[in-house]
Amino acid sequence: MDAAMEQPAFQTFCRSHVERMEGVLGRLLPSEEILPARLHRAMRYSVLAGGKRIRPLLVYATGHCLGVAVEHLDRPAAALELIHAYSLVHDDLPAMDNDDLRRGRPTCHRAFDEATAILAGDGLQALAFQLVAEAGWGMAPEWQLRMLQALAASAGSRGMVGGQAIDLAAVGHELALPALETMHLHKTGMLIRCAVQLALFAAGQDRGEQYEALLRYADRVGLAFQVQDDILDEIGDLELTGKAMQGADRSRNKPSFVTLLGLSGAQDYARRLLEEALAALLPWGAEADHLRALARLIVERSK
Amino acid sequence: MDAAMEQPAFQTFCRSHVERMEGVLGRLLPSEEILPARLHRAMRYSVLAGGKRIRPLLVYATGHCLGVAVEHLDRPAAALELIHAYSLVHDDLPAMDNDDLRRGRPTCHRAFDEATAILAGDGLQALAFQLVAEAGWGMAPEWQLRMLQALAASAGSRGMVGGQAIDLAAVGHELALPALETMHLHKTGMLIRCAVQLALFAAGQDRGEQYEALLRYADRVGLAFQVQDDILDEIGDLELTGKAMQGADRSRNKPSFVTLLGLSGAQDYARRLLEEALAALLPWGAEADHLRALARLIVERSK
Repeated sequence: MDAAMEQPAFQTFCRSHVERMEGVLGRLLPSEEILPARLHRAMRYSVLAGGKRIRPLLVYATGHCLGVAVEHLDRPAAALELIHAYSLVHDDLPAMDNDDLRRGRPTCHRAFDEATAILAGDGLQALAFQLVAEAGWGMAPEWQLRMLQALAASAGSRGMVGGQAIDLAAVGHELALPALETMHLHKTGMLIRCAVQLALFAAGQDRGEQYEALLRYADRVGLAFQVQDDILDEIGDLELTGKAMQGADRSRNKPSFVTLLGLSGAQDYARRLLEEALAALLPWGAEADHLRALARLIVERSK
Repeated sequence: MDAAMEQPAFQTFCRSHVERMEGVLGRLLPSEEILPARLHRAMRYSVLAGGKRIRPLLVYATGHCLGVAVEHLDRPAAALELIHAYSLVHDDLPAMDNDDLRRGRPTCHRAFDEATAILAGDGLQALAFQLVAEAGWGMAPEWQLRMLQALAASAGSRGMVGGQAIDLAAVGHELALPALETMHLHKTGMLIRCAVQLALFAAGQDRGEQYEALLRYADRVGLAFQVQDDILDEIGDLELTGKAMQGADRSRNKPSFVTLLGLSGAQDYARRLLEEALAALLPWGAEADHLRALARLIVERSK
């Protein structure tokens, strides 16, 4: 069992908010009866496939820390998860990582077909922006726009999509640690930073000491997340990770923190990043406990 | 020469606004020096490849009709063109239409590679939303949000992306006229309607008689555009259309207005739609002349 999950309050927080997120996503995704039905089935299949919901949990935990009403976090959290889900669908395509399995189930293009997977990803991205742009969920238009700016910037070619392009170009090349970190900052770090930003915007904050401290937390957690991902790719239990093989990154010659730092070096690095993330939360008391536990969960997770 | 282009004022309008749009797109797209450079090269290649800029021209012409400052139309028009461009990049992929040529040049995945084309499309979509969500171009936040809602809805799975999914599913099947029209309403009609909506929102209008009349115009023009596309696929000059072969849709068993109505039936239908589009503009005087000429241009174009 993951150590962070031993805290009952955090365990309850995760369970209830993951459940909440599943409900929100289920309601906001077009139903399978709406035409084109096959496309909507593929979109729901790709999003409602379980997953750890780390990004939504970060939105909710940051919002909890700042005293934000949970109704103001549902749509930003769902939008972020849709962006993440679409990126996985496209990332798994034959022209990209060519993965057959995701979370132990056939990837979208295997369960449906390649064209449907491309379109499902495209539709999920549009839906993400639509959820936040729509009226009637209690945010002032100015803050909806700040959220949309952050989402678009962190998802786009200077964010997540750019990170994937750097990643693809890096296969078979040696990357030094700074280049590897730049790639991950874009590929996963910016969406994780965005999760924290969305909750800050929902709290009416887009500058100041609290804002900077929470972004520092987010950046350390984002990097730690990726370091741990590389560690799990090397040593993770296939049953738990749902991946098709162990050491897949290494066999593809993908640069990773494990190949660069060695296994124990990567583990040390993840621990140091965790300490820095926790240090950024020093100004807060118990209201930041879920953020602390989430950082630990990310570094100590086994899948 | 297209008849509508014989009007010097409209000719000047088109030339100056296409040029304006090229400048806006060139400035708002990330430069090729920004990393990842190859991705940004692919994005610029796919957008700055000429093209008729019909959707931006519709935004500008509707804005002209309503007296909107042109600075308030640049970003919505550019966003719409980015959505259109990304959809072409993905549509051309081997898993979709598998096209090698677009406007007489290699398609994005041929000029670069498949993975880059998928990511370039994804990045273009995110950029479209980013352009409109950003601050500082003179629109009130409420109207920026209305624009983002319209963009997302018309681009997403119940709009353009949905239309492409219906289109793919229809290959090799007989479609009746209503089903063919539903498909096109989604695939191309909703973005054309969105062009007119964006200018209406820039004018501070989202309801009323003017609003309804201009949407009626947009819907007729959108359908006429597709009918003419099918006609050109059948009889168009390959040099002008930039396509690899004549009758490509027919040879792929794609349902088209020409296969359903015959060539002269389709031509009659396009003319009737043009008349209905012009009828919707009756409440306006000379300020709608560019919209009238644009409708004629779309039906009478030869490429």
